[in-house]
Amino acid sequence: MFNLYHHPFSPASRSVRLALGEYGLAAEFIEERTWERRREFLVVNPAGTLPVLLDGGGTAICGPRPVLEYLDETRGAELGGKRLLPADPRGRAEVRRLLDWFDTRFHGEVSDYLLTERIYKRFMTAEQGGGAPDSSAIRAARSNIKHHLHYIGWLAGRRNWLAGEDLSFADLTAAAHLSCIDYLGEVPWEAFEHAKAWYARVKSRPSFRPLLLEQLPGVPPSSTYVDLDF
Amino acid sequence: MFNLYHHPFSPASRSVRLALGEYGLAAEFIEERTWERRREFLVVNPAGTLPVLLDGGGTAICGPRPVLEYLDETRGAELGGKRLLPADPRGRAEVRRLLDWFDTRFHGEVSDYLLTERIYKRFMTAEQGGGAPDSSAIRAARSNIKHHLHYIGWLAGRRNWLAGEDLSFADLTAAAHLSCIDYLGEVPWEAFEHAKAWYARVKSRPSFRPLLLEQLPGVPPSSTYVDLDF
Repeated sequence: MFNLYHHPFSPASRSVRLALGEYGLAAEFIEERTWERRREFLVVNPAGTLPVLLDGGGTAICGPRPVLEYLDETRGAELGGKRLLPADPRGRAEVRRLLDWFDTRFHGEVSDYLLTERIYKRFMTAEQGGGAPDSSAIRAARSNIKHHLHYIGWLAGRRNWLAGEDLSFADLTAAAHLSCIDYLGEVPWEAFEHAKAWYARVKSRPSFRPLLLEQLPGVPPSSTYVDLDF
Repeated sequence: MFNLYHHPFSPASRSVRLALGEYGLAAEFIEERTWERRREFLVVNPAGTLPVLLDGGGTAICGPRPVLEYLDETRGAELGGKRLLPADPRGRAEVRRLLDWFDTRFHGEVSDYLLTERIYKRFMTAEQGGGAPDSSAIRAARSNIKHHLHYIGWLAGRRNWLAGEDLSFADLTAAAHLSCIDYLGEVPWEAFEHAKAWYARVKSRPSFRPLLLEQLPGVPPSSTYVDLDF
């Protein structure tokens, strides 16, 4: 049995929840508010970041990429064709390139701005960085997302899934980021049909259902967040 | 035969050069100034980041972690005990945790500030972000590095190498970051004996020698940069 330190609106946590769902693995969830910098959590992961998977044997696997690689190494072989990292090293490199793209670039240019300004700051004290949203950060994210949706559409128009023929961690990670900000109504789907069609396919997977049930007190989801025909 | 897009003072490029050196693999180097955002390079790696390994078969492997994983997957098995990712999944997760630590955290808090302000800006036009160094960024990095050297010393005092009993990609990546700023004389080794003793061991490896020969026009290396008894 796994335990997963996560936050419901942490994209990196969501990517691991989706992977666990695809693999049919159960986990007990522990919600962590990283901005509180809880001492007990910092002992588990000195970086203070999410997600952290406790593997049941006393080992903490820290960070989205290490957790996904660990799941592939310890469970992937059993999945045969449903594996979420391809068997071919070049195909694996492409999945990893896209993991970096979304966890670093998309996060730094889009999702971190929107989630920090519109969600996290609501729960932070002034000392932790809370306060009114910074509208210039929100504006930057709303501008930056267009380039990313264009790129997603470009990939999805040429391949069956983002990294190639098969569903992979790249799709789950991209969708995890988008789902968090889609909750806020911050994804201009109408202008990006290819990206929208790809997202609709990920969103309709059973592994996605638990994410669509998340509710944030005081911040209702956008009107189409749970809608599979958005 | 590999080709490697790199920059001599990009820590991520250096980590791959060290890994190639440890594996005894030759590569032809192509220097890339990412701030110029060269169109031909963006076609190879849309993220515009270094390093990029061309594997000789027409595939570009983009980013330090994808390249290191690719080298392990395609060459690691031949190396037996000299492999730079452990065979055990938990050990691999610990190496990957530390890769994230240095490539994300150390880079964001220390090496990116110092390299951008003291090196890259010299070569950038005003439009590319060049200009006088921002002394507040340099001050922040000089303060932040202490915490990291303490953590390196803590790890090195409890383990043979940073991630465990054997030399791994974690040591190479940490040393790659430190070597770039050590060139600038920005590492206060004297106050961190454990970290210094660990770095001396990495620095004395044959794979490190080419890095010690790097010279930056107009910026001479610190007096101890090439010295193995620094």
